[in-house]
Amino acid sequence: MSTIEKNVVCLVSGGMDSATLMYEALDQGVLHSCLSVNYQQKHKKELLYASRLCTRLGIKHHTIDLSALKPFMMGSALTDQVTMPEGHYTAENMKLTVVPNRNMILLSVAIAYAISHKLMEVRFGAHSGDHDIYPDCREGFVKAMNAAAAIANWHPIRVTAPYINFDKAAILNIGIPLGLDYGWTWTCYQGGDLACGKCGACQERLEAFMKIRRIDPLKYEREDLA
Amino acid sequence: MSTIEKNVVCLVSGGMDSATLMYEALDQGVLHSCLSVNYQQKHKKELLYASRLCTRLGIKHHTIDLSALKPFMMGSALTDQVTMPEGHYTAENMKLTVVPNRNMILLSVAIAYAISHKLMEVRFGAHSGDHDIYPDCREGFVKAMNAAAAIANWHPIRVTAPYINFDKAAILNIGIPLGLDYGWTWTCYQGGDLACGKCGACQERLEAFMKIRRIDPLKYEREDLA
Repeated sequence: MSTIEKNVVCLVSGGMDSATLMYEALDQGVLHSCLSVNYQQKHKKELLYASRLCTRLGIKHHTIDLSALKPFMMGSALTDQVTMPEGHYTAENMKLTVVPNRNMILLSVAIAYAISHKLMEVRFGAHSGDHDIYPDCREGFVKAMNAAAAIANWHPIRVTAPYINFDKAAILNIGIPLGLDYGWTWTCYQGGDLACGKCGACQERLEAFMKIRRIDPLKYEREDLA
Repeated sequence: MSTIEKNVVCLVSGGMDSATLMYEALDQGVLHSCLSVNYQQKHKKELLYASRLCTRLGIKHHTIDLSALKPFMMGSALTDQVTMPEGHYTAENMKLTVVPNRNMILLSVAIAYAISHKLMEVRFGAHSGDHDIYPDCREGFVKAMNAAAAIANWHPIRVTAPYINFDKAAILNIGIPLGLDYGWTWTCYQGGDLACGKCGACQERLEAFMKIRRIDPLKYEREDLA
């Protein structure tokens, strides 16, 4: 009899992509736990969503406080006083949301966590919609980190991003049939009570739902969506 | 007229290798600043040495507090209650001092720092004496991290370890002619008032000085060295 081992840790942000990633790993029976990082992002609300979703699903979840890194995360609208860009994603305005070396930092911490728990794999939710704006969400970067993680320690760790060539609609098409309730995920880059429906992140999310002809169960403050 | 730009940040531990690294970069006119990381190592005293040396040389120095990572740094005598091994370095006893994924974490933070200060290069002090025990002090790891750092962000960063094929005696042979006072560096893995002279780190250091027939200016508590 072959047994499936729970040897995967997923980096989760509270957003829809990493929630799907985690939910799929749970469905596959390989999920050990989830990790979130507080780097003093403005949209800290997503951390609350990550932790609530894990709690409701009975999944171990840790939030690591790396707010000490904030002084080095300069020049990003995600952590700074720079005004958050509204409207659709464009390379121009969304570059403001790039946090220096974010994914390498998150992955390196997740790899340490995986080693200390004797796991085999770190998964994160990079997808094709991120490629234009975030160099650390591209396949080459995932491969480079996987190569480093294979040799950095006595215990090799795999780094994977299963959705690297999927768009957000394709990701919804994985999570919805599995039964994931996307009302428990948070995407908005603003930290309001309701999702703004205006920022690039909200718009991308709403378009993904439109593309697969489903209603996003999340509540929005934009009047035409309420 | 060509001007040398100060575009290098050095990771410094307070030990003799990274002190030499920093001192050589200072001599070359390329040093921008130095970075240390507090990961709740037992030998936190080295952080004090790193900061004192930088202060005395007029070098910008930052210590980043990553003590939040401590729960994930399990199984290491450097951060845990595991007894620190005495005697000479052997693969067997020194593996106890391996901190999971340490150098990838330190480098990923230093890369973020370098980007936020528009620098070009992150240097760290890995050397050949570390190869047997620490996979993240080998040339393959440096190359893998350099490859990742070249593509992880819009701003590419070089990762270098100039002493990767040097032993500690060769490193002393760089620093001593430049005038570095090694009494201002701390190597001991114990946190006593004086260096113990017994732990693997002390022994390796003492042997390096013997090899080049110089007296280590640091004070030791071992009677035959006092």
